[in-house]
Amino acid sequence: MHKSEIRDIGLAPEGRKKIAWVRSNMPLLRGIEADFEKTRPFAGIRVALSIHLEAKTAYLCHVLKAGGAEMYITGSNPLSTQDDVAAALAEAGMTVYAWHASTAAEYEAHIRKTVECGPGIVIDDGGDLVSMIHNDYPHLIDGIIGGCEETTTGILRLLAMDKNKTLKFPMVLVNNAQCKHLFDNRYGTGQSVWDGINRTTNLSVSGKTVVVAGYGWCGKGVAMRAKGFGANVIITEIDPVKAIEAYMDGFGVMKMTDAAPLGDIFVTVTGCDDVISDQHFWLMKDGAILCNAGHFDVEVNVAKLNEIADEVKEQRKNIVGYRLADRWLNVLAEGRLVNLAAGDGHPAEIMDMSFAIQALSARYLVANKGKIAQMIIDVPADIDRDVALRKLHSLGITIDKLTDAQEKYLGL
Amino acid sequence: MHKSEIRDIGLAPEGRKKIAWVRSNMPLLRGIEADFEKTRPFAGIRVALSIHLEAKTAYLCHVLKAGGAEMYITGSNPLSTQDDVAAALAEAGMTVYAWHASTAAEYEAHIRKTVECGPGIVIDDGGDLVSMIHNDYPHLIDGIIGGCEETTTGILRLLAMDKNKTLKFPMVLVNNAQCKHLFDNRYGTGQSVWDGINRTTNLSVSGKTVVVAGYGWCGKGVAMRAKGFGANVIITEIDPVKAIEAYMDGFGVMKMTDAAPLGDIFVTVTGCDDVISDQHFWLMKDGAILCNAGHFDVEVNVAKLNEIADEVKEQRKNIVGYRLADRWLNVLAEGRLVNLAAGDGHPAEIMDMSFAIQALSARYLVANKGKIAQMIIDVPADIDRDVALRKLHSLGITIDKLTDAQEKYLGL
Amino acid sequence: MHKSEIRDIGLAPEGRKKIAWVRSNMPLLRGIEADFEKTRPFAGIRVALSIHLEAKTAYLCHVLKAGGAEMYITGSNPLSTQDDVAAALAEAGMTVYAWHASTAAEYEAHIRKTVECGPGIVIDDGGDLVSMIHNDYPHLIDGIIGGCEETTTGILRLLAMDKNKTLKFPMVLVNNAQCKHLFDNRYGTGQSVWDGINRTTNLSVSGKTVVVAGYGWCGKGVAMRAKGFGANVIITEIDPVKAIEAYMDGFGVMKMTDAAPLGDIFVTVTGCDDVISDQHFWLMKDGAILCNAGHFDVEVNVAKLNEIADEVKEQRKNIVGYRLADRWLNVLAEGRLVNLAAGDGHPAEIMDMSFAIQALSARYLVANKGKIAQMIIDVPADIDRDVALRKLHSLGITIDKLTDAQEKYLGL
Amino acid sequence: MHKSEIRDIGLAPEGRKKIAWVRSNMPLLRGIEADFEKTRPFAGIRVALSIHLEAKTAYLCHVLKAGGAEMYITGSNPLSTQDDVAAALAEAGMTVYAWHASTAAEYEAHIRKTVECGPGIVIDDGGDLVSMIHNDYPHLIDGIIGGCEETTTGILRLLAMDKNKTLKFPMVLVNNAQCKHLFDNRYGTGQSVWDGINRTTNLSVSGKTVVVAGYGWCGKGVAMRAKGFGANVIITEIDPVKAIEAYMDGFGVMKMTDAAPLGDIFVTVTGCDDVISDQHFWLMKDGAILCNAGHFDVEVNVAKLNEIADEVKEQRKNIVGYRLADRWLNVLAEGRLVNLAAGDGHPAEIMDMSFAIQALSARYLVANKGKIAQMIIDVPADIDRDVALRKLHSLGITIDKLTDAQEKYLGL
Repeated sequence: MHKSEIRDIGLAPEGRKKIAWVRSNMPLLRGIEADFEKTRPFAGIRVALSIHLEAKTAYLCHVLKAGGAEMYITGSNPLSTQDDVAAALAEAGMTVYAWHASTAAEYEAHIRKTVECGPGIVIDDGGDLVSMIHNDYPHLIDGIIGGCEETTTGILRLLAMDKNKTLKFPMVLVNNAQCKHLFDNRYGTGQSVWDGINRTTNLSVSGKTVVVAGYGWCGKGVAMRAKGFGANVIITEIDPVKAIEAYMDGFGVMKMTDAAPLGDIFVTVTGCDDVISDQHFWLMKDGAILCNAGHFDVEVNVAKLNEIADEVKEQRKNIVGYRLADRWLNVLAEGRLVNLAAGDGHPAEIMDMSFAIQALSARYLVANKGKIAQMIIDVPADIDRDVALRKLHSLGITIDKLTDAQEKYLGL
Repeated sequence: MHKSEIRDIGLAPEGRKKIAWVRSNMPLLRGIEADFEKTRPFAGIRVALSIHLEAKTAYLCHVLKAGGAEMYITGSNPLSTQDDVAAALAEAGMTVYAWHASTAAEYEAHIRKTVECGPGIVIDDGGDLVSMIHNDYPHLIDGIIGGCEETTTGILRLLAMDKNKTLKFPMVLVNNAQCKHLFDNRYGTGQSVWDGINRTTNLSVSGKTVVVAGYGWCGKGVAMRAKGFGANVIITEIDPVKAIEAYMDGFGVMKMTDAAPLGDIFVTVTGCDDVISDQHFWLMKDGAILCNAGHFDVEVNVAKLNEIADEVKEQRKNIVGYRLADRWLNVLAEGRLVNLAAGDGHPAEIMDMSFAIQALSARYLVANKGKIAQMIIDVPADIDRDVALRKLHSLGITIDKLTDAQEKYLGL
Repeated sequence: MHKSEIRDIGLAPEGRKKIAWVRSNMPLLRGIEADFEKTRPFAGIRVALSIHLEAKTAYLCHVLKAGGAEMYITGSNPLSTQDDVAAALAEAGMTVYAWHASTAAEYEAHIRKTVECGPGIVIDDGGDLVSMIHNDYPHLIDGIIGGCEETTTGILRLLAMDKNKTLKFPMVLVNNAQCKHLFDNRYGTGQSVWDGINRTTNLSVSGKTVVVAGYGWCGKGVAMRAKGFGANVIITEIDPVKAIEAYMDGFGVMKMTDAAPLGDIFVTVTGCDDVISDQHFWLMKDGAILCNAGHFDVEVNVAKLNEIADEVKEQRKNIVGYRLADRWLNVLAEGRLVNLAAGDGHPAEIMDMSFAIQALSARYLVANKGKIAQMIIDVPADIDRDVALRKLHSLGITIDKLTDAQEKYLGL
Repeated sequence: MHKSEIRDIGLAPEGRKKIAWVRSNMPLLRGIEADFEKTRPFAGIRVALSIHLEAKTAYLCHVLKAGGAEMYITGSNPLSTQDDVAAALAEAGMTVYAWHASTAAEYEAHIRKTVECGPGIVIDDGGDLVSMIHNDYPHLIDGIIGGCEETTTGILRLLAMDKNKTLKFPMVLVNNAQCKHLFDNRYGTGQSVWDGINRTTNLSVSGKTVVVAGYGWCGKGVAMRAKGFGANVIITEIDPVKAIEAYMDGFGVMKMTDAAPLGDIFVTVTGCDDVISDQHFWLMKDGAILCNAGHFDVEVNVAKLNEIADEVKEQRKNIVGYRLADRWLNVLAEGRLVNLAAGDGHPAEIMDMSFAIQALSARYLVANKGKIAQMIIDVPADIDRDVALRKLHSLGITIDKLTDAQEKYLGL
């Protein structure tokens, strides 16, 4: 264990309280923690982890530590790191390199230090750790058993590396697990994005025209909840099948240039950059709200907006207004993930499922050390099913089983 | 062309009118018809087709015929065949073996005659044609280029055959196409099931407890529309992930034995048999409505219900009441597909997509005659995409495209 | 009892079956029937009734007859009369003047004959009976104890008469009862309109742009269910508060001239005439569906459409196409109430509440004969409450009661 | 102007920023402010105001001041007062007596000082000012032109006073205006309650069983949005008609004792006390969340809960856990209005309508000084309509108008 670099260890009690609260609402991880305490699957293994550093992530760190891991932790976004939570982890004997609102240089330095622990397991969110290791620390690769990637965007980066044969250790595509993307991306993003927008703006969603860029699982969740708030929803897409789905769900479907003048609130969830940019800004209404729940801070091109604005000012906490001639465009949370940078991220019960997949996938990597041939692997189906059954059990739900006769009828 | 076996050729004008109406609402097939008229991809090929014989299917037959096919047609369910539509097809020079409410023996005879044409292409819905050919007409197999299967259930049967190496010609799994199952199974079934139930019962759905067995795409559609009508929805499932999805969608999730006493209306959409059976009937409320939108007439075990009932009587057209002591259970459409046997099936625009996939898949089989190695193939991705783009075009919707810079950012 | 004028007494068995079905789903009326059989509140009284003549209305007639009434019955719309139901009523000893698709002259003759019975109680739907009596049979007014009016539109006519002091006997405004308009107009119209549209067109509602003219209780119901089907909904209104409600519910709100080019399906529920007329027809899309669920056949100006059309033809049962140059507009059920003229009207459980109000209001009139000073009276609050409690009881629902302490806290 | 009693005048800049933000989203008040600046309707009049003291209320104060009023301001709940906003008002030359988390004694003292200004107009929220004046400052009554009451609960208190003839100056029932209760109570409460719950708990709403006590406009809003989040909703009611509405909307309806063991989250919106109390606490699940959006802190009987708990601790900011044997019940915001005490209250655009009614009603009182006979008056219909038209105008929405022919048809 190394010396943590955090804001203020004195914040640890508040962080501990936050972690205790999410722990009480994460029954799957509690069960896994109990298992890990007995079996110690990570004994003697260093785990480098980069996930948005708030209470739920912190509890995952505790669970891995309970399994014997030596934890090295950084955040995955300067705005989503909560200093009290970081302090609580440091206090509990883990090494943490992260603070809220770090500069780009600090953020990179924290990633470097985390990587420099020489990890056996890498747990990544968006690919920053994996990318840094391959680029700047190739000598550490031999020591790495494997890793897990949390997000759609990170997976796109891994697939590109795999295609080019540049990926050098096995990565589990956690996001592809059913118990991850079907719930986290849809119900998690759906709720937490609106939590972030509502608390930040205190504006009505009912009646508003909400433009959602992207109709993948995240976009479906954001749109579904916008509809649940009484909004009039417009979807932009590049995939024709998803576009038809959006149309059949009763949403307007059009190009962003057509949606730009109509929207009151814009949410990007595409995984791509430059989705809302200068060809759109000039078309928008005065007072339009822009935010992102996709990845990094590139979906809404805030850099460009900053460049062309006549005036920039903070309108309210986490809202920066950019004036273009006589119209103000209001960007939430600097265009970073609005649910994390202006909220507390996904609900605890959702992350309970996602992080159960993470914890069990990490255990799988260790248990199968050296036996995994491909560099890219999906979460094993039995882990997915195990998590689903744990979730049903935690809800007290019992479901039907096929009878022998039914199995026979189905030719199973 | 052989002599059709239909109820009454005099019904043809009414059938023609029905076909003209759906044609005016099926722009994708109209475009394909125009293409086929020019290219004649099925010239000289006999097509044996077994799909629910109503107007939309009839228009598909016209489209294939426009492509040069010699059509041999039967229905896929005795109750869903519409005699006026069958007459219109016969009148238009196709060979039809089908009539409404055929006996089991007549139904089988019609399938046999259809098969006996010696088809080059087989278009099947549930697997009756394919099964009959393999079992009783193996000598015809050599002449068969391949076939298409429309349904989830038919695909389950094909996969079982393929596993046993008993499938002897290539079958395209039409249902697996995105433009099929994402729309037909969900939005098509969702709307048409409630059309069938509402017109048959004239009862309120608002406030009722609706039990949906199965939360696949069809079940999701049926449940979504039940919620749209203001029902209180309960889902039964055997798959734990789907069960959690249903829970997260706000539905009750439980075993059928627990749901049985709560339900006012039951809809089965599982693809399995005996889903509602004698262990459930005795638990139900007086006046409960039972219907099926899955496959055949085996999901609700009507045979068993008939056996144990103290009294059976027709309550209203398409509703048979079964009295068990002091409670009446009301079965719609004899437990057959309620949307087809007590309605007109899916909306025309939905079938336009599904049948566009069928028509283009059939063309693909002919164009790749002899070149297809596997017995089980998915619809080629470019057909799926082509249909999606045709659909967007028909709706007048334009969507965004990735810029070169964005493609580069994504590593595409 | 006089000789009925109906289509065919031989249809009575089918009508009886329909009435038995609705009876089994109308528990409130069954309870009232049992009360009436004992107390015979209408003994010796002639009741003239004009309501859409289908099974639920027929059962109300049975209930009134069970209370001793001598029933004289006509329909309230030539297309909504069901001949089998009329036959069953005649067979049961009531006098019926009505048949399906009567000409305007026949329809008027039937109303006249019904009025000529010299009623003690008048049960009206839209005001035809009351209007006819005041205009052409003033000598009968002295014998009339009072009447009940079912609809919003009928009430508007009564209020106008009352303002002019031309109303000469007390009328109960049944529609104003909470147990009537909150349920019948909203949930009843909401479901039955879409039942009518779906079974008539067999087209998809998902994704379609549905224009609802009027956002009163009926319009709210139609729009809510359209949204439940996945439609994109636009509201037109003349009342600014209702327009804001529609906006806050996430619907588009605009003038009909702006909505006309956008709509795929139009439903009028305003109670006014000429809502969709020739300034709109020329703006509409080819294939647009037009229907009415308001009153009579004047909301969509079909007469005007007929006048300007280049060609008129039946497209499908209950759908007439009107060609204006190169576009076809498709009118359902001749612009009459689509839920009644192309369906079976409201669900039985909904009409159970509405007709319970009717039956108890009629009893109230008789019990208070000569004591009612005003010509326009609302349904007494205790009848409304009685019906609500009967409904909850039929559903097996128990609700909370204020404790004494709570009543005191509230100052009750 | 007197010396304000506030926490810290140094917070004024942050408060000013908050007020500027809501101002930019309250176009109706901006228009009224412009009118008032010209006409100065309140010149020389002291206005005592007690409304939840956050930014939107503050902007109302500015608008009244722009109309010439001398403002004396207090909050209406110790937890909803925001100290920075109070500072900004004081800085702008208004007299403010309020700070966050005042003790009961301080809260009362602040109300007294506000009343002691000797107001001409009283603007009240829940009846505290009116009650205090009648009880302890009867000599001030003569100077009072009249007042406005914002809430349902306050109105109940006024009606009780009026019934007893103890109300001594005219009060406008602002809540009864359509532009108030149809929007503020439904869409405002609906959104802001969930904003408060979500940001406070960071728990999932999807799938949860949410129990809403009360199905008035507020309850309808809370339930509608719970459904929009994918919750399974149960309603408790004492009114049978509202109970049936809840049933028809697809919600479970039962007594609180039956709902208590099922609920994950409870929200009270009844206006009554003791709605959830010790007969319910012992029935609840471990981890149940309890909150109130009705009035004061009496709907959930927190005092009783505190009395019977084995242990009490803060679980997270604004969440206090009460342990009853082995179960923890978690109360949000001390059982006070969760949307105000744990959030920022209603969205700005909603309060824009409510406060437009307030401002114009206050102007009406002054303009009609001495001419108002009754003590209880509704908002004049032309004010309601004026606000509705201003709202539509601000949204850029144009609606239809009746033609002369239509007016004639309707007998208007």
